[in-house]
Amino acid sequence: MIIILKKSATKEDAERLMAIIAEHGLKPLYMPGSERTVLGALGDERVLATLSLEAHPFVDRVLPILSPYKRASRELQTHDSVVMVGKVPIGPGHFTVIAGPCAVESEEQILESARLVKARGAHILRGGAYKPRTSPYSFQGLEDEGLKYLAAASKETGLPVVTEITDVHDIEKVAACADMFQVGARNMQNFRLLKELGRAGKPVLLKRGMAATYNDLLMSAEYILNEGNADIVLCERGIRTFETGTRNTLDLNAVPYLKERTHLPVIVDPSHGTGVRDMVLPMAKAATAAGADGLIVEVHPHPDQALSDGQQSLFPDQFAKLMEQVARVAALEGRSLA
Amino acid sequence: MIIILKKSATKEDAERLMAIIAEHGLKPLYMPGSERTVLGALGDERVLATLSLEAHPFVDRVLPILSPYKRASRELQTHDSVVMVGKVPIGPGHFTVIAGPCAVESEEQILESARLVKARGAHILRGGAYKPRTSPYSFQGLEDEGLKYLAAASKETGLPVVTEITDVHDIEKVAACADMFQVGARNMQNFRLLKELGRAGKPVLLKRGMAATYNDLLMSAEYILNEGNADIVLCERGIRTFETGTRNTLDLNAVPYLKERTHLPVIVDPSHGTGVRDMVLPMAKAATAAGADGLIVEVHPHPDQALSDGQQSLFPDQFAKLMEQVARVAALEGRSLA
Amino acid sequence: MIIILKKSATKEDAERLMAIIAEHGLKPLYMPGSERTVLGALGDERVLATLSLEAHPFVDRVLPILSPYKRASRELQTHDSVVMVGKVPIGPGHFTVIAGPCAVESEEQILESARLVKARGAHILRGGAYKPRTSPYSFQGLEDEGLKYLAAASKETGLPVVTEITDVHDIEKVAACADMFQVGARNMQNFRLLKELGRAGKPVLLKRGMAATYNDLLMSAEYILNEGNADIVLCERGIRTFETGTRNTLDLNAVPYLKERTHLPVIVDPSHGTGVRDMVLPMAKAATAAGADGLIVEVHPHPDQALSDGQQSLFPDQFAKLMEQVARVAALEGRSLA
Amino acid sequence: MIIILKKSATKEDAERLMAIIAEHGLKPLYMPGSERTVLGALGDERVLATLSLEAHPFVDRVLPILSPYKRASRELQTHDSVVMVGKVPIGPGHFTVIAGPCAVESEEQILESARLVKARGAHILRGGAYKPRTSPYSFQGLEDEGLKYLAAASKETGLPVVTEITDVHDIEKVAACADMFQVGARNMQNFRLLKELGRAGKPVLLKRGMAATYNDLLMSAEYILNEGNADIVLCERGIRTFETGTRNTLDLNAVPYLKERTHLPVIVDPSHGTGVRDMVLPMAKAATAAGADGLIVEVHPHPDQALSDGQQSLFPDQFAKLMEQVARVAALEGRSLA
Repeated sequence: MIIILKKSATKEDAERLMAIIAEHGLKPLYMPGSERTVLGALGDERVLATLSLEAHPFVDRVLPILSPYKRASRELQTHDSVVMVGKVPIGPGHFTVIAGPCAVESEEQILESARLVKARGAHILRGGAYKPRTSPYSFQGLEDEGLKYLAAASKETGLPVVTEITDVHDIEKVAACADMFQVGARNMQNFRLLKELGRAGKPVLLKRGMAATYNDLLMSAEYILNEGNADIVLCERGIRTFETGTRNTLDLNAVPYLKERTHLPVIVDPSHGTGVRDMVLPMAKAATAAGADGLIVEVHPHPDQALSDGQQSLFPDQFAKLMEQVARVAALEGRSLA
Repeated sequence: MIIILKKSATKEDAERLMAIIAEHGLKPLYMPGSERTVLGALGDERVLATLSLEAHPFVDRVLPILSPYKRASRELQTHDSVVMVGKVPIGPGHFTVIAGPCAVESEEQILESARLVKARGAHILRGGAYKPRTSPYSFQGLEDEGLKYLAAASKETGLPVVTEITDVHDIEKVAACADMFQVGARNMQNFRLLKELGRAGKPVLLKRGMAATYNDLLMSAEYILNEGNADIVLCERGIRTFETGTRNTLDLNAVPYLKERTHLPVIVDPSHGTGVRDMVLPMAKAATAAGADGLIVEVHPHPDQALSDGQQSLFPDQFAKLMEQVARVAALEGRSLA
Repeated sequence: MIIILKKSATKEDAERLMAIIAEHGLKPLYMPGSERTVLGALGDERVLATLSLEAHPFVDRVLPILSPYKRASRELQTHDSVVMVGKVPIGPGHFTVIAGPCAVESEEQILESARLVKARGAHILRGGAYKPRTSPYSFQGLEDEGLKYLAAASKETGLPVVTEITDVHDIEKVAACADMFQVGARNMQNFRLLKELGRAGKPVLLKRGMAATYNDLLMSAEYILNEGNADIVLCERGIRTFETGTRNTLDLNAVPYLKERTHLPVIVDPSHGTGVRDMVLPMAKAATAAGADGLIVEVHPHPDQALSDGQQSLFPDQFAKLMEQVARVAALEGRSLA
Repeated sequence: MIIILKKSATKEDAERLMAIIAEHGLKPLYMPGSERTVLGALGDERVLATLSLEAHPFVDRVLPILSPYKRASRELQTHDSVVMVGKVPIGPGHFTVIAGPCAVESEEQILESARLVKARGAHILRGGAYKPRTSPYSFQGLEDEGLKYLAAASKETGLPVVTEITDVHDIEKVAACADMFQVGARNMQNFRLLKELGRAGKPVLLKRGMAATYNDLLMSAEYILNEGNADIVLCERGIRTFETGTRNTLDLNAVPYLKERTHLPVIVDPSHGTGVRDMVLPMAKAATAAGADGLIVEVHPHPDQALSDGQQSLFPDQFAKLMEQVARVAALEGRSLA
């Protein structure tokens, strides 16, 4: 429920109302604006109805939040959110590029990767330490050692780091080494993990599941928001369809659809979204033109030797070209990579 | 099979070889180049193998065509095709916009539509006379009368016209009034229709079916090519997936995938690809950035009164904005709307 | 709209009302029952509303038909339809098996096929003369010659014949040789063809398209019904999904879903629904247990030499086993193959 | 790799070979048969190749395991596995029915449910204590309290219990109260959880993910098997497709496909597979006829008051009818519910 206070309402009025909301076991939200203050009340709709909030003298109007996601919705917050990853912003005006290898393979490899993506203008370093793989017999990542190398690469280059988290147990370890948690497609509905990340104090990159609707994705974000963490970036990375010519079907419709409904930033992963190195550049540009807030791209110093996802990882030169061409498209959208 | 002749081979040599190919019930293709001549031979692979073409003195090399589509493949023709619709080209350097209402609803409506899209820079007029509708109780189009109005709108504005064909019977009538046949998603594998259009002497806009793979689409183009008509434009218009937030899932991966494999132009339909008016602009720009050769967009003088597809038809002002913004993205890709 | 007449209403009353309905450009339906007469009125809902049919003295109640398909709906006809193919019924109490090769390949092959499926208890012979194939370079069927062979096989064995129709042009030729038209998955929304089959005077086997919803299938049936042909059998044959382990995903949910909503018979094609010979038997039994009215199965005297679909065609012995096992499951459902 | 020993090989020979395999960092498997002993060696294929196992005097033949899943494959174990849940077998000859409410809602509710499903012949009780829900605002289950009630219901009725596990943290608690872990569709690729369950000493019911291929499902089973737990039951519960008439598309092709390739039992969930109460019975029978080893069905004493999944939960009488009708179909397949 959205409670719009009268212009004359004081901060004390707002606090009194929030106390009432909290007494009834509901979550009050405080959203002061330049013109007037708006409050939110989240929880059991039946309890909400009994409160007769519209009868309070300093309440102007009470509106239901119609979407099933509440805090993620533009109904509650109309302006775009900016999520800070270290000192790097993701949000309006900016176009943020996250780049790096699929997996951390050695200290040398991640250092080399970090240097090369930084030199070509990337803002954030990616690299997996814990790798969820379809087969138990595939390379599963360097795990704790990988985290250490990532931290070293971050320290040397100054790039903030995002890395995947696959289990609640690892939150502390990952938080110590990384600036942003990545929740992969396979864990998008691992609600335990989402809840814990809602209390972990670092931003979260939430990737869309392979069979997740837009609504499912927003509801998963709501799990994190509901625990108090508003620093969430959504990521379209392709869905599973009947088409076998590509690894996934990159659904760029997701960009305008989500941005219409949520204030959270939306980025795109053209590497997993195509699975084909030569398709990454055109789809990166397409994502930019569709209005995305940034990209996450797999780049490897030597893709032909990569332990995973080599076929979709860019060569360093390809990444340089991508940065250059994407910058031009982003400029048309009023966004800067600088 | 691709037969690369030696530089010294004469036209007579080529003709002799083509006669041999034809004698065995196979289709010979003649593709003279600046450096040397290349021949093609299409048909039963087992017969092809018996011809021992590589043994001929003026044959340099014989290569198999590996893709299941032959004439559509870049293996046979490496350079991009340009398809002329009236005097309007679709192909490299250009960015061609086809616009107009979903259906021809009256003479006045299509005239008004033609004028408005022309005034805003569209190159070709669209409008359905025969409408394939899920329900027999929905508006089925003005049929023959609609064709007449289309021809009138074309005559007045000078815009060439594309309109959907749903049955072999109508080929002559449609050819008399339109400059290009459109094969809709539901008829993409109506092979009889495709074969006849291969002999109908006008270009064909071939839309991808809702469950058609890239390969299926190329094979359907092959049906038309195989009858002698090379003027085909492929169109990505969204596929059917589990996502219900949009009418279809616009699969822009199709653009780089198809353009890598075929010399035929590829355009995109962001109207059917989203089903939502406000998503047409961002997805039109995305399609352009992905490397498409053009767009087909639904525009209506009064979308709120449209007899079909009103919710995805642009208002005239929205179309003006689209043309302006798409032109800037196209320029980055070396394409002009002029 | 459904118009339930009072018990006292005479046939003349009904006729008077039907005349009124027809005068307004709507389609009247006459459905006399043992207790009372029910009329239907199909057409523009706004016109229907102006008729005030409920005000007529011999009208008891007027009910809207809520489903988008009208004549196919159980709202209009509650009891199961029985469709006669030659002298073979498809409908309640019966379990009807259609069997034969994918394509007619020679007179000998179809005769041998007809004899073998008859000997093992099949009720109707299948065999394609016009074959819609993804590639123009694949075997396209024997066409008119194939029809002739089919008719001969039917004559010798007494089995009625069903064969695919792919174009309006062929209706007369097919009707002369076959007892039932088959509309394949690729033509399920070829509305011209459906309309013509609605006037062709023979039953139609309507297969679900690869991306067609249940609703789409029922709407396509409505096209045929709306032209006056009520002899339609629906066929679930698998849809296209992300799963590549099978040719299609056989959606047996379709059986109870459709039978709840329509009075038309529903059969299942486990050959296309799996694409794998060894999966045909278990899925045929599953379809029977789900409540299907019958099966259509590919059987070939020599599947290893088949010109199409050999991998999913049963060997004669496998078909014998299928008939035996399916009969037992059908018996549990109160259905007989005799 | 599969190592078939000569008939004359002794147990000591086998042990010597297994020691060699283990020394090289590979996993040896010991599979004594009535005729001869078969060993397995799992791990890095390149290391395997260097061992030259076929050169050992008591080795008959060495065969590669061609499928990507090794221990789950029939290549390694040809006979069907039987998984014991408490004293209840799941496997050939039996047809095992797991029934109960979606969620444990109160002590009384789960006791009543347990009594009613037992009285009607169910073998195992289901009920969720930890409920993964799309929305954070939906009922999330009674958690630890729910486990306690489940244990009480099991104790009173003697039915073994299966309940969902959503986090590694809960393994001990769940193991203390339940006889079988259920891994839900959303966690099918939560590889951490799978690995831990591989060491948890209780059987696992592994449900197919909404976008998981058959191969993905088998690979997830392999994660559990690879840690030493062979007591796995696979469950088809419907996949996500474009069809919106049902909650999911129940893919019964999965049953014959999986049973051909793996020795693990396969059961079916017609409740989630349809999402519609009235479709559960026909699809339960279909699953039985397709060759499933059992069912998991949602039954509630008062479905209209259920806190979750009420629309797909059976009324007690419907469940009684299901047990009766399924038993007859199972008998045709040589399976008994007794």
